[in-house]
Amino acid sequence: MSTNTESDNADAKPTTTPDADTIDTEPQVEPEEEDEVEVSPDVEAETEPVEPDNDDVTGKEVPKEADDEIANGDDAETEGEADAEDDGEAVVTGPPQQFQAAIKGGAIKEFVGTLRAIVDEAKIRVDPDGIQTRAVDPANVAMYDASLAAGAFESYDATDGVLGVNLKRFAEILKLAKKDDLVQLSFNTTTFKLVVHIDGVEFTMALIDPDSIRKEPELPDMDLPVSFTIEEAQIRRSVKAADMVADHIRFRCEEAEETVFIEAEGDTDNVSLELTESDLAALTAAEGQALYSLDYVKDISKQFPRGTEITLTFGSDFPMMIEYEFSNGECEVLAMLAPRIQSD
Amino acid sequence: MSTNTESDNADAKPTTTPDADTIDTEPQVEPEEEDEVEVSPDVEAETEPVEPDNDDVTGKEVPKEADDEIANGDDAETEGEADAEDDGEAVVTGPPQQFQAAIKGGAIKEFVGTLRAIVDEAKIRVDPDGIQTRAVDPANVAMYDASLAAGAFESYDATDGVLGVNLKRFAEILKLAKKDDLVQLSFNTTTFKLVVHIDGVEFTMALIDPDSIRKEPELPDMDLPVSFTIEEAQIRRSVKAADMVADHIRFRCEEAEETVFIEAEGDTDNVSLELTESDLAALTAAEGQALYSLDYVKDISKQFPRGTEITLTFGSDFPMMIEYEFSNGECEVLAMLAPRIQSD
Amino acid sequence: MSTNTESDNADAKPTTTPDADTIDTEPQVEPEEEDEVEVSPDVEAETEPVEPDNDDVTGKEVPKEADDEIANGDDAETEGEADAEDDGEAVVTGPPQQFQAAIKGGAIKEFVGTLRAIVDEAKIRVDPDGIQTRAVDPANVAMYDASLAAGAFESYDATDGVLGVNLKRFAEILKLAKKDDLVQLSFNTTTFKLVVHIDGVEFTMALIDPDSIRKEPELPDMDLPVSFTIEEAQIRRSVKAADMVADHIRFRCEEAEETVFIEAEGDTDNVSLELTESDLAALTAAEGQALYSLDYVKDISKQFPRGTEITLTFGSDFPMMIEYEFSNGECEVLAMLAPRIQSD
Repeated sequence: MSTNTESDNADAKPTTTPDADTIDTEPQVEPEEEDEVEVSPDVEAETEPVEPDNDDVTGKEVPKEADDEIANGDDAETEGEADAEDDGEAVVTGPPQQFQAAIKGGAIKEFVGTLRAIVDEAKIRVDPDGIQTRAVDPANVAMYDASLAAGAFESYDATDGVLGVNLKRFAEILKLAKKDDLVQLSFNTTTFKLVVHIDGVEFTMALIDPDSIRKEPELPDMDLPVSFTIEEAQIRRSVKAADMVADHIRFRCEEAEETVFIEAEGDTDNVSLELTESDLAALTAAEGQALYSLDYVKDISKQFPRGTEITLTFGSDFPMMIEYEFSNGECEVLAMLAPRIQSD
Repeated sequence: MSTNTESDNADAKPTTTPDADTIDTEPQVEPEEEDEVEVSPDVEAETEPVEPDNDDVTGKEVPKEADDEIANGDDAETEGEADAEDDGEAVVTGPPQQFQAAIKGGAIKEFVGTLRAIVDEAKIRVDPDGIQTRAVDPANVAMYDASLAAGAFESYDATDGVLGVNLKRFAEILKLAKKDDLVQLSFNTTTFKLVVHIDGVEFTMALIDPDSIRKEPELPDMDLPVSFTIEEAQIRRSVKAADMVADHIRFRCEEAEETVFIEAEGDTDNVSLELTESDLAALTAAEGQALYSLDYVKDISKQFPRGTEITLTFGSDFPMMIEYEFSNGECEVLAMLAPRIQSD
Repeated sequence: MSTNTESDNADAKPTTTPDADTIDTEPQVEPEEEDEVEVSPDVEAETEPVEPDNDDVTGKEVPKEADDEIANGDDAETEGEADAEDDGEAVVTGPPQQFQAAIKGGAIKEFVGTLRAIVDEAKIRVDPDGIQTRAVDPANVAMYDASLAAGAFESYDATDGVLGVNLKRFAEILKLAKKDDLVQLSFNTTTFKLVVHIDGVEFTMALIDPDSIRKEPELPDMDLPVSFTIEEAQIRRSVKAADMVADHIRFRCEEAEETVFIEAEGDTDNVSLELTESDLAALTAAEGQALYSLDYVKDISKQFPRGTEITLTFGSDFPMMIEYEFSNGECEVLAMLAPRIQSD
C-alpha cells in the first residue's frame, strides 16, 4: 500500500490543477496536499483494476479533479463490481409512495446536524427499516454514512424512496423543536413537499430534485490496522489544543508501548496527548501514523453527542474512520476522513 | 372599506416617490407596499372629510410622504375634530413643576424597552396619575401607546408636564438596575435634567426639547372584527417559524371553524400555526385576514413580558392592535401595526 | 509637586510630536493629554537630578517619546542610583537552570490574564521564592507589578532566571485548564521551551528572547495622599456607569466630609457615585482629585478577582495605584495608572 506523493504523482495523474485555496498563506504546501489527499488507489487495486480520477461510467480515462479523493471508490462500483445492497439502492431514484414518521427533536436534530458538518443538501433514502444518508463534502475530503433505524422513531411508516433535502433549511426548522418535542414528518405525494409538524406549527418544505444532488460516494473497503475507542471529550480536548498551534492533527500509534498519540506541530509550538490503554475503552495497536486536516476533524468532532464513545480506525497515510452511535444504537454514524500527506 | 392598491393608487396620491429601501431585494414589491401600507383613509372618512397625506394644518392638499401611514390620523385632528382629552394633553408642552418617583428596575425597563422597539426618543407625559407615551416609528408603520400608572411606582409625586427623553440613553442607564433594584427618578427644575438614582449611582441625564420630537400620533377609531387572546410564547414561536421562510406574516380567521391561522409563505416553503378555541384564552371570530411586516411583529413581540396574555385585534387589510398589560395591570401597552397589502 | 500642563510643557520637552491617535474625535484635546500624562518628574527630582524623556544610558538629553510617561522612572535608575534589589534583578538576563512548578488553573489564569490587560508579552522573572513580572503598556499609561509567591503553587522548584513569555499564547493554552485543574509548568533547558501540562495534554511553547521585550519600568516612589479600600463590584459598577457618558473617570476626595466621589462628565450627562466611610473598608481622606482614562480603568478593573477588596491610592493629578491580592495573598498585584489632565 502506498499513497502518491508529490514526486511520483505525475505518473498517476496527467496535469492536474489543484483546487484554488486562495486564503492559504502557505502556497508551497497546499498544492501538494490537494494532489495527494486521496484514498490510496491501491486499495481498490486489490480487488479490480481502477481508473483513477474518473467517474465517467463509460470507463474512459478522462482526467477529472472533482472526484479524485474519497469519492473515487465510485469508479470501481460503476465498472461492474457492486454488491447486492448497492444495486438495490441504485434502483430507487424517486420519492417514496409513503413516508410518515414521528421522532424526538433531539434525535433528528443530531442526525441532520451531523450531515450538516460537511454538506448543505443530501439525499435521504427512506425504506421500511429507517432512513439513511451517505454524503461527501465538496472538497472530497470527508464522507458521512449515517442511518437512523425505524426503532429511533416514535412511529415510522415508509416505503422505498429518496428525498432530496436542503439540510440547512431542515436544521433551521428543527431549531423550533426542543430535545423532547415530537417532530412529525410526512411526505406529501401530491405537492412533493416534506411536511414538518412541531408542536402545532406546520412547515411545508420544498424538496430538491435528488438527481441535482451530488452522487453518493462508495465506501472504499480498507484494512486499517490501528483502532481505538475513546470518550468524545478527549478528542474534543485534543482538537481544541491542536487548534492553538497548527492546522493539522496527527494520530500516531506505537505498537510496542500500546500507546496512541494525538499530536499537532506548529511553527514554534507543539501539542501532544498521550493515550495509554488505561485511557482507552479499546485498542488495537499497530505501528502507524497519519495526518488529517484539523478543520475537518473539528467539524466532525463538534457533532459528537456528549458522553459518547468514539471509535477511530486509521493506517499510515490512510483515511481515518470515525464511528459512533446514538439514540440507543438506533443511529449509526460513520465518518471517513482523507489523510493529508506531509511534505517533509 | 378599502385600502389603496397599486392600481387605484394613482388617483389618491399624485406622483409619489416611495421611501428608499436600498437593501431590499424585491424591488417590484416594495414600492407597492410603501404606498399602500396605511390605515385605510375610509376609517377617518366615516367621521369627516380627510385630506390624505397632508399634515399641513392649513388643510391644503400638499402631497407629502412622511405622514402617509398610521400618523395621518393627525390630519383629522388638526382640522378641527378633537376630543376633550386630546385637547387637554395638547395644552401641556412644558416640563412638569414636580416629578419625583421611585420604581422597581423591572417595570421601568419594560416600559422603556417597549418604546425602544420602534423609537429612539419620545415625549413622556407625566401627570398626577402616572406617565404616558405615544409614539410612531419613523416609517409610520407601527405605533405604541403605553402608560405606567402611579400605582406601578413605589412612590410617585408629579404635576402635569412633558419630558423629552432619549430612550436609548435612558435604557442604557437602566441596565445598571437589576429587576428589583429601586430606580429613583426626579426632574431637576433648575437644570432641566432628569436625575436617575440606582443603588448609590446618580446619573444626570439631559432632556430633549419635546418640540423637537415627532408629533404624537392620533389613535384612529377603528372597528376591527377579529379579536383573540393568546399566551405570548405562542406568538413568539409563530414569529420565529415565519421568520425562517418569509418577510411577512399573515393573521387569518375562519369564522365558521372558529379558528385563527398565523401563516407565512416563502418562495418555496410555508409555515402555518392553527389555533382553535382550546388554544386561545378568548376569541371573537369573523371572516378576515391581513398581512403584516415580520420585522415589526418581531420587534414588538420581543418586548412581550414573559408569560403575558396578548390580545390581537385585526380586520381584513386593516391595522392590527396588540394589547397587553404588566406590573399587575398598572402598565398598559397598545401597539398598532399597519397592514401590508399583497400584490398578487 | 506639579504636573506639566500644555502651557509649561514647552520647557520640559523640546518639540514633541504626540503619538498619533487617529480614531480620536476630539483632536484639540488629545495632543494635550498625550503630552501631559506622565508621572510628575518632580517626584524623581526629589531624590536626584532627572533627565526627562531619556532612557539612553549615556545620560545624553536626546528627546524621546517612547518612555515619556510612567517609564521615565527608568532614567533615574540607569543614571546610577539603584537599590540593591534592582541591581540584583538586573544581573539575571538568561533563563533559569531549573524551573518546575504546578499550580491550579484558576491562579495562573488570573496572573496571566492580569498582565494581558495591558501587554501581549512580558518578562517573567523566576527565582526560588516565586515568579514576578513588571510591565508597562505600549502607550506608557499603565503599569503592572504582579508576583505569584511560591506558596501559590502546589509545587515549586526554581533557580533565578527570566523567561520571555508570549502572554497571548500562554493565556490561550491555559483556557484548556479549568479553575481546579492542575497546570504543570517546566522549562526545558535543552530546547529552551516552556512545557505546559494540562490534564494529559502537553504543550511545548517557544519562549521569546527577553532582550527583545520592552525594558521593565521602575516604580516611581510617590507620596499619594488619598487612599481607600472598596469591594471590586463597586468599582466595576462605577466604571460601567461612567462608560455610558464619558471617556474619562474622576476620583475625588473631600477631606472634611470623609467622602470619595467617583465621577464622569459627558457632554450632556453626568454620573456620580458617592462613597462615605460606611461604604468603604478603609479610608485615608485628603483633599484631592484626579482624572484617568476610562479605557484603562475598564481593562484593569475587568481583571479584579470577584469579591476582592481593592485599595486605590491617588493624589491630585498624580497616578493612581491600584492594589489587590488573590490566592490567599500569595499573588500580589499593583497596577499604576497615569492621570489625564483636564484642559479647561
